[in-house]
Amino acid sequence: MTGIDGAAATAFASGGRGARDRIVASAKVLFYRDGIGATGVDQVAGHAHVSKRTLYKHFATKGDLVQAYLRDIDANQAVPRERALMNTGLSPLNRLLALFDAAEDSPARGCPFHNAAVEAAGEMPEVEDIVHAHKLSFVERLIATCAELGVADPRELGHQLAVVFEGAAALSTTLNSTSPMKYARSAAAALIDTASKDADTHIRT
Amino acid sequence: MTGIDGAAATAFASGGRGARDRIVASAKVLFYRDGIGATGVDQVAGHAHVSKRTLYKHFATKGDLVQAYLRDIDANQAVPRERALMNTGLSPLNRLLALFDAAEDSPARGCPFHNAAVEAAGEMPEVEDIVHAHKLSFVERLIATCAELGVADPRELGHQLAVVFEGAAALSTTLNSTSPMKYARSAAAALIDTASKDADTHIRT
Repeated sequence: MTGIDGAAATAFASGGRGARDRIVASAKVLFYRDGIGATGVDQVAGHAHVSKRTLYKHFATKGDLVQAYLRDIDANQAVPRERALMNTGLSPLNRLLALFDAAEDSPARGCPFHNAAVEAAGEMPEVEDIVHAHKLSFVERLIATCAELGVADPRELGHQLAVVFEGAAALSTTLNSTSPMKYARSAAAALIDTASKDADTHIRT
Repeated sequence: MTGIDGAAATAFASGGRGARDRIVASAKVLFYRDGIGATGVDQVAGHAHVSKRTLYKHFATKGDLVQAYLRDIDANQAVPRERALMNTGLSPLNRLLALFDAAEDSPARGCPFHNAAVEAAGEMPEVEDIVHAHKLSFVERLIATCAELGVADPRELGHQLAVVFEGAAALSTTLNSTSPMKYARSAAAALIDTASKDADTHIRT
């Protein structure tokens, strides 16, 4: 399974954590794997070994729990396929390309923030605010990395790569296959190349 | 609202249609707009003005109704943003670029097939079969259009454009904004340009 499940497993193994942490850890496993709509709060409580009463003491509504689930992923940079962008040991070019190299054991589940937006369907505005903030912050980091590359228009390239990155995750979900990742990678490389030529500069590899 | 709702509205206006058609038309409105998980069969029956008993006579399970919903969209080429590819009045290049011009009043809802895959979360294999068949057929049509363009590797370009197209819809959903469409369009144009240069040919505009 993915690093999201891995984080939850670590939470359980560490022992002695409070009920709230266990509930959020369980939500991270179940909401991501099975979907938010398909997962009842009873199931989260059962998985976390707390009573439903305890769960409701910490989270008055399911919407509150969904918000905590997404905030926790955001705070821990726990979307595996986004992490390559933070790897300052890589050159800007390799950071960008590594976004499309992430091994994904569970291609069908894609991005937890995007999936939450699909399931919220306009009915959970607080959830959508968290999704927007997370994704816009990721796009800004893409743009900053494109600026490091020295391209003429890092904002344009950053937004283009954001579309390709989202498409890689989404089409992997749609097709339940990792094959879109390789086409996304070749598309990203071609777009970076074009943007670099436009700038009449050389990419710093 | 989008053409999916429009088709349903037409179904109602035509009058005299059977209960089954009305149920599917209502499913197309509600499953798309509100999500599959969030829409109960009671709501579909109410919207279609049929009893729950009548609904279950036609669709033994909710999964059967979800399948009928997606099959109906597939059969009627009723994903608005995919239709540009069928417009033989346009050149191959303009057909490909027009995919990113579609006006979308409801960016947040994206592609009904992708959304169904997100919500199915591996628990509705028959639904996923329909999603895969629809999307793979669309990718093959993209590849055929790229072949018409005369690029050296239409399969590579077709798959790249499939990622960009899926990303445009998905990021529009995630951000509840149509702005990803314009970056998707510029990315598609750059990828087509690169693929055309690779072929050492000229694009037939």
